[in-house]
Amino acid sequence: MTKILHPVLKILILCLVMLEMVVCMPGDQFKNWPVRTGPWVQPTRGEVWPKPKVQKSEEDFLALREKDFRFEIKSSEVHGECDIINEAIKRYHKRVFPPSASDTETNINQNNRRQRKRDSRRELKNDPKYKGYLEKVEIIMNNPQGCEKYPYMDMDEQYEVKVNAPDSPGTAQIIAFHVWGILRGMETFSQLVYASTQYGDALQFDGNLHSGYDTSSIEYLVNSTMVMDSPRFSHRGLLLDTSRHYIAKSVLKDNLDLMEMNKLNVFHWHMTDDPSFPYVSKKFPELSAKGAWHPTIAVYTQEDVADIIEYARMRGIRVVSEFDTPGHTQSFEPGHPGLLTECYDGDTKNGFLGPMNPTKKRVYAFVEELFEEITQVFPDKYVHLGGDEVDYKCWKSNPDISEFMNKWNLTGQYAKLESIYIKKLLDIISSFPTKNGYIVWQEVFDNGVKVKNDTIIHVWKGQWEWEMAKVTSSGLRAILSSPWYLNYINYGADWTKYYLADPMDFFGGAKQKELVLGGEACLWGEFVNSVNLIPRLWPRASAVAERLWSPASVRNTQEAKHRIQEMECRMIQRGYPAEPINGPGFCNVNWNA
Amino acid sequence: MTKILHPVLKILILCLVMLEMVVCMPGDQFKNWPVRTGPWVQPTRGEVWPKPKVQKSEEDFLALREKDFRFEIKSSEVHGECDIINEAIKRYHKRVFPPSASDTETNINQNNRRQRKRDSRRELKNDPKYKGYLEKVEIIMNNPQGCEKYPYMDMDEQYEVKVNAPDSPGTAQIIAFHVWGILRGMETFSQLVYASTQYGDALQFDGNLHSGYDTSSIEYLVNSTMVMDSPRFSHRGLLLDTSRHYIAKSVLKDNLDLMEMNKLNVFHWHMTDDPSFPYVSKKFPELSAKGAWHPTIAVYTQEDVADIIEYARMRGIRVVSEFDTPGHTQSFEPGHPGLLTECYDGDTKNGFLGPMNPTKKRVYAFVEELFEEITQVFPDKYVHLGGDEVDYKCWKSNPDISEFMNKWNLTGQYAKLESIYIKKLLDIISSFPTKNGYIVWQEVFDNGVKVKNDTIIHVWKGQWEWEMAKVTSSGLRAILSSPWYLNYINYGADWTKYYLADPMDFFGGAKQKELVLGGEACLWGEFVNSVNLIPRLWPRASAVAERLWSPASVRNTQEAKHRIQEMECRMIQRGYPAEPINGPGFCNVNWNA
Repeated sequence: MTKILHPVLKILILCLVMLEMVVCMPGDQFKNWPVRTGPWVQPTRGEVWPKPKVQKSEEDFLALREKDFRFEIKSSEVHGECDIINEAIKRYHKRVFPPSASDTETNINQNNRRQRKRDSRRELKNDPKYKGYLEKVEIIMNNPQGCEKYPYMDMDEQYEVKVNAPDSPGTAQIIAFHVWGILRGMETFSQLVYASTQYGDALQFDGNLHSGYDTSSIEYLVNSTMVMDSPRFSHRGLLLDTSRHYIAKSVLKDNLDLMEMNKLNVFHWHMTDDPSFPYVSKKFPELSAKGAWHPTIAVYTQEDVADIIEYARMRGIRVVSEFDTPGHTQSFEPGHPGLLTECYDGDTKNGFLGPMNPTKKRVYAFVEELFEEITQVFPDKYVHLGGDEVDYKCWKSNPDISEFMNKWNLTGQYAKLESIYIKKLLDIISSFPTKNGYIVWQEVFDNGVKVKNDTIIHVWKGQWEWEMAKVTSSGLRAILSSPWYLNYINYGADWTKYYLADPMDFFGGAKQKELVLGGEACLWGEFVNSVNLIPRLWPRASAVAERLWSPASVRNTQEAKHRIQEMECRMIQRGYPAEPINGPGFCNVNWNA
Repeated sequence: MTKILHPVLKILILCLVMLEMVVCMPGDQFKNWPVRTGPWVQPTRGEVWPKPKVQKSEEDFLALREKDFRFEIKSSEVHGECDIINEAIKRYHKRVFPPSASDTETNINQNNRRQRKRDSRRELKNDPKYKGYLEKVEIIMNNPQGCEKYPYMDMDEQYEVKVNAPDSPGTAQIIAFHVWGILRGMETFSQLVYASTQYGDALQFDGNLHSGYDTSSIEYLVNSTMVMDSPRFSHRGLLLDTSRHYIAKSVLKDNLDLMEMNKLNVFHWHMTDDPSFPYVSKKFPELSAKGAWHPTIAVYTQEDVADIIEYARMRGIRVVSEFDTPGHTQSFEPGHPGLLTECYDGDTKNGFLGPMNPTKKRVYAFVEELFEEITQVFPDKYVHLGGDEVDYKCWKSNPDISEFMNKWNLTGQYAKLESIYIKKLLDIISSFPTKNGYIVWQEVFDNGVKVKNDTIIHVWKGQWEWEMAKVTSSGLRAILSSPWYLNYINYGADWTKYYLADPMDFFGGAKQKELVLGGEACLWGEFVNSVNLIPRLWPRASAVAERLWSPASVRNTQEAKHRIQEMECRMIQRGYPAEPINGPGFCNVNWNA
């Protein structure tokens, strides 16, 4: 029996989900929600995305005032020396208090405002659940080794958040052993805070448009809460493709911000491919000078790459580079001719070029030099080596390759030819002292290349359940992308499909399951550029993020849709153009301001 | 035999088109193109979208300099009194010279730049096809009646553009009888101009990244050209839905800019629907106060509506309002309770509400008052009255409605009940002196409502070929939207599908075909808000725009793909976030600047 759902059944389920979204009435839990109710997806308030492992919240709450609020580093080991935490404090102070749509409203009578303000304060204080102001969140990292510098595979992201705990009322704590947990905890804390208009008469519209709402009484609140959290998977990635279209550095940075908010921790940078070579190599500057879409305005210089890696580091995100070979390398040719296979029609060259020519020695010399540079420029201990979709047609047409294969008794065995290349590449990379291991696309495994035991196989094709079982049963580690090709767009709320896919949904024992490191959402660049990358990706990638962070049991789309709706609005309110994925609705943002 | 293409065949054709895009090599016509060539869709240079009826271009060309270029109104009748042309001159001066990516480049040695500049000028002047500078485009509108104020159905959009014509070398003319033709001609002229780097050494990269390109020698050129053009269809519309999500006024304006560039001339403003009522009525302010997503930041005030209509008027675009009734009216209830039908489960009300209750007199009194206001606020002679998707289930459950129907011998005939409502609504609208006619969704026709002869039927359902034949054979005019629901997104280059649909592709005689006024692209708002509206719509709507403007014979996607690629880049270069629709590529825009 296969575990793959029949496509018709899938469509039926999707339709039911969508139908429900359109016609269902909101449940009781939203009765007190101060925005218009109706048959659309109501966002939650102050719920965390991705959902923490353990969370206990009370009805008691504290209020926060922007001017009288601070994060305070408690442990002396950290103080003043951990740039990651210091930067995070600046960042999260803003995120706790997102600019409210109402900040921009005008025409409110100032006296009236002040009068109502007093009223509202009185009402807040009259609420028996109100427990005072939260002025301080303590950051507690009791780790004598101090602050780690670079994020890495299996880094410790565990944390606790306590708000108004019985043993320290009126305060909050973010507790972790490592800086990575502190970062995740700060994000969680920032999401626990919500804007409320329940106190005062903020949403009591007086019928006169020109007086507007009195929004001065919006309160930022946080309920008494205890969170104990750590990720389910250590590799929670996102692939962006900067070759099919150039992606502006500002967009890459915005995307890193959003990855942090969604607790993703690997930016898989698919740097090069057939259409363009945007990386400015120190050793081979001609590659981008002649192979980029544009040699100065569509490239990433050494400084740009360092800047992106630093930006990611500050957010606890690894940057894993991929310079895909031996296929997907057409863009290498203009700046470094002669690496690729010349294709033939019969006895004559037809002008087309195929994958790199694995029979040429200069190919390996080049690859060694290029990757020596790359492995130094990208400090992560892992490098993604590609190895996917090698087209044998051109190799088959080339007489030099045929001769080589005859000579080595490989006649007709092109998968073996491919393996020769990959094996040599892996040996080259292994010889560099800076790297711990490598990731390759599943073809490398499928073609039977002998890889080192710590190689990670990146599963991306269909029937991934079988592939995951095969890879892990052979003792190799795996990451999954097959169900998460977000470049394939669909009409409607397709996030549920991504949400329900689980890398563990294959037949295998506990030992096999241990070898599943996580997965990556992929946004291939055929139809994505700087214009539409962020709205196309978010919040759809949020669905993948929760799958990879939260416990396997968190998979109820009826519950999740309200939280992902809050997450969508949260991203918009923080200034990132996430698109609407749940049908009609309104995030409290003033687009006309 | 039906003319509907078998779906499998359609998919096959689409695949072939996409395959071709990915693997084809560029044709000869692109050999001299100064950007990187490769197996991606090359944009044309200075080609017009939508394609004009008649165009004759020579290889001779003139050069334009931003400082020494102007539009000049020639005919004394127009001078100084036509705000539409005066505003257009300001707008198009910028569009003729879009900010070049290269403007932002730095690190170019200034002396070097000046030296090269001189070289380049010399080279330009050495080209035998170079015929001097174009300093003046004459706007000639020989119409003693002067400048019309509001665009209208069947307005005259015919124009001619002449550049370096034999009888007036070194100048250009835009000639039309009416201001609407002048506007279309200015757009066409602006698209004929292209940026060239062929003169001088601009794209001769010197291998040193820090010196960059010398881009000071980019020239704006325009070939000697004669265009005679007029639209195939008079109604070339675009529907936006501002109810399912609120759309910012700035986005509506950007969209009007893009409509103008694509020569679309009707903004169908689907203002209200079930989810929200964003229009601030003078007579019924409670409708938006209680029925909008937000009563102050998610509404269109009277001033906002007037502002949008004025913005559209300046671009020769009609604004046709739709306040859909009797279905799609849930958002009317909070601000004006009691119009809708109460639904029953057996003998008891179930709390749900259905369409407006056509048996209540107060419904008609309300509708008359509302539309009296609307028809004054929206000056267009046409109003769209909706009338689609009326769900009979709730009507069937309501005992008062059953009693009414029994009384009038209509038992069980709900389509007739619907007709009663629509007939009354049409009579009400007809009684207003300000309106010439109305547009209704096809159900009104399908349900056999007797409509006035000048009613326009808006065809939107499947099997539209039959419907178009039926509507026109009954002597009524029709506009088509069925194939152009752009909210339904697909992976890949889906614009070809929209491009190939033709409103005339149905069986019918010449008299019937004369009744086809055109069509509308629709972007329903379930999954569209201010964040993603523009990139989702453009350049996909450009495909519809060419279908509706250009002759029926212009339908070669292999030819069109290069022009729509230039149009995509043109929209981006002019500052509008059009998404990539043809696969990998690069528009010459510096996103990092």
